[in-house]
Amino acid sequence: MGAPEKISSLQNPRIKHLVKLRDRRSRDEAGVFLVEGYREIRRALEKKIPLVEVYFSPEWFLGENEPALLASAEAAGAQLFELSKDAFAKVAYRERPDGLLAVAPQWKRALDDLDLGAGGPGAKPPFLLVVEAIEKPGNLGTILRSADAAGCDAVIVCDPVTDIFNPNVVRASTGVLFSVPLVVEESARVAAWLQAKKIRTVATTPAADKIYSDVDLRGPLAVIMGSEQYGLSEFWLKHADVPVRIPMAGQADSLNVAMATIITLFEAVRQRTR
Amino acid sequence: MGAPEKISSLQNPRIKHLVKLRDRRSRDEAGVFLVEGYREIRRALEKKIPLVEVYFSPEWFLGENEPALLASAEAAGAQLFELSKDAFAKVAYRERPDGLLAVAPQWKRALDDLDLGAGGPGAKPPFLLVVEAIEKPGNLGTILRSADAAGCDAVIVCDPVTDIFNPNVVRASTGVLFSVPLVVEESARVAAWLQAKKIRTVATTPAADKIYSDVDLRGPLAVIMGSEQYGLSEFWLKHADVPVRIPMAGQADSLNVAMATIITLFEAVRQRTR
Repeated sequence: MGAPEKISSLQNPRIKHLVKLRDRRSRDEAGVFLVEGYREIRRALEKKIPLVEVYFSPEWFLGENEPALLASAEAAGAQLFELSKDAFAKVAYRERPDGLLAVAPQWKRALDDLDLGAGGPGAKPPFLLVVEAIEKPGNLGTILRSADAAGCDAVIVCDPVTDIFNPNVVRASTGVLFSVPLVVEESARVAAWLQAKKIRTVATTPAADKIYSDVDLRGPLAVIMGSEQYGLSEFWLKHADVPVRIPMAGQADSLNVAMATIITLFEAVRQRTR
Repeated sequence: MGAPEKISSLQNPRIKHLVKLRDRRSRDEAGVFLVEGYREIRRALEKKIPLVEVYFSPEWFLGENEPALLASAEAAGAQLFELSKDAFAKVAYRERPDGLLAVAPQWKRALDDLDLGAGGPGAKPPFLLVVEAIEKPGNLGTILRSADAAGCDAVIVCDPVTDIFNPNVVRASTGVLFSVPLVVEESARVAAWLQAKKIRTVATTPAADKIYSDVDLRGPLAVIMGSEQYGLSEFWLKHADVPVRIPMAGQADSLNVAMATIITLFEAVRQRTR
């Protein structure tokens, strides 16, 4: 292990490349994405994400555990680069950087890669969350956290407007992106797969007659959530087994999609653990 | 009604004053706060908030309903000012301004101002949310939305770190700030008041034995939520009638205080409407 390469020029090609990785096209071309921040990088390492590079700048460090984190990253195969304060300011996308930015490989999981348990006696029935065309990275991150907290087996993202490797999804998910199995797939394929697996679909829409908590949410279950702006698509309105709604007092738009998701998931948890 | 005064100089005292109102001290000294955006101003007018001034800049308008909104504001007693594009850019605090910014008077509501129903036959028992020392304006705004959607009678903010008139609370609450009765008060007074009113307090804390959904949440109820960073204070841990916890799969910090609040409130709604 040698000393890490030092970079102070803002014109260094690596610096320019890191800035470009904020754009989806550059991320997809390179097959990588950015992971910024101590907590997020630690979670990536815990989940054995093979970080390619870690850029650090001690002048931005907020704590004392950064050197140990860097040693772990290097031991796991990441190449380290030390950046000047200015160079790090240029590559950081957070308002308050903490001097740590990693490059991680993107991955792609297919529906059939999901491990839904052997289905034998005592196995828990599948519990999935399907979200459609979510636009805001912050909402997608919050939704991933909810699915993690609720113990969903996987999150399936249909026809995403937001790239799951967007830096703000990584951040808003507080690293859950690395632990919750995540599949990106077209709605039609997802519906066919759920049907083949005999997984019941419950979709929230304000037009439904049934209240979400009056419906049986035990057994093999996929909760389907629509997009922020348009709600559930015609496709899912037609293909979901049970439409449900969340009763709302107050003004019509008080619940956003992330809030509606967490309410529905935790009602399912309540029923499934009774 | 004359034509509104036009302002284009960035040195105009009104422009400088508007910028200052982003700071709590200036807001409190002037007894006013900022309401930016079409939706928020419309909601303030709907709730009869007596807007003092409305600043507008047609070059930033996003729709066609702005003149009607301005006419309503003026009819309700607000003074109008037309700003140049540059002047508006200076006073807007949003990333994407829509050319509308109002100044509204602050208000102060005391515990005894709250209308908890006459208590006669058929009256609904009180349903309150108490939040302690919330730090992030975005969380407070989301919590207000949750309380609105759940139909809480009021939100009581104890020992706030964040000023309820912070521009980001106004924004994150999507105008609910104008409709949900909101009291700011010290924890000790709130606890004594709840006890005098015979309102049961249920507080969420990870250390509790009971699961939130196993507890009776009907009847006169106050849900108590701690701060983001420190959770429930010693005071409320000692003074709450029933400590409860939300069961969590996944990583320990997946649920933040806003998410825990909405889960608990909607379980209470479920039980109270059965």
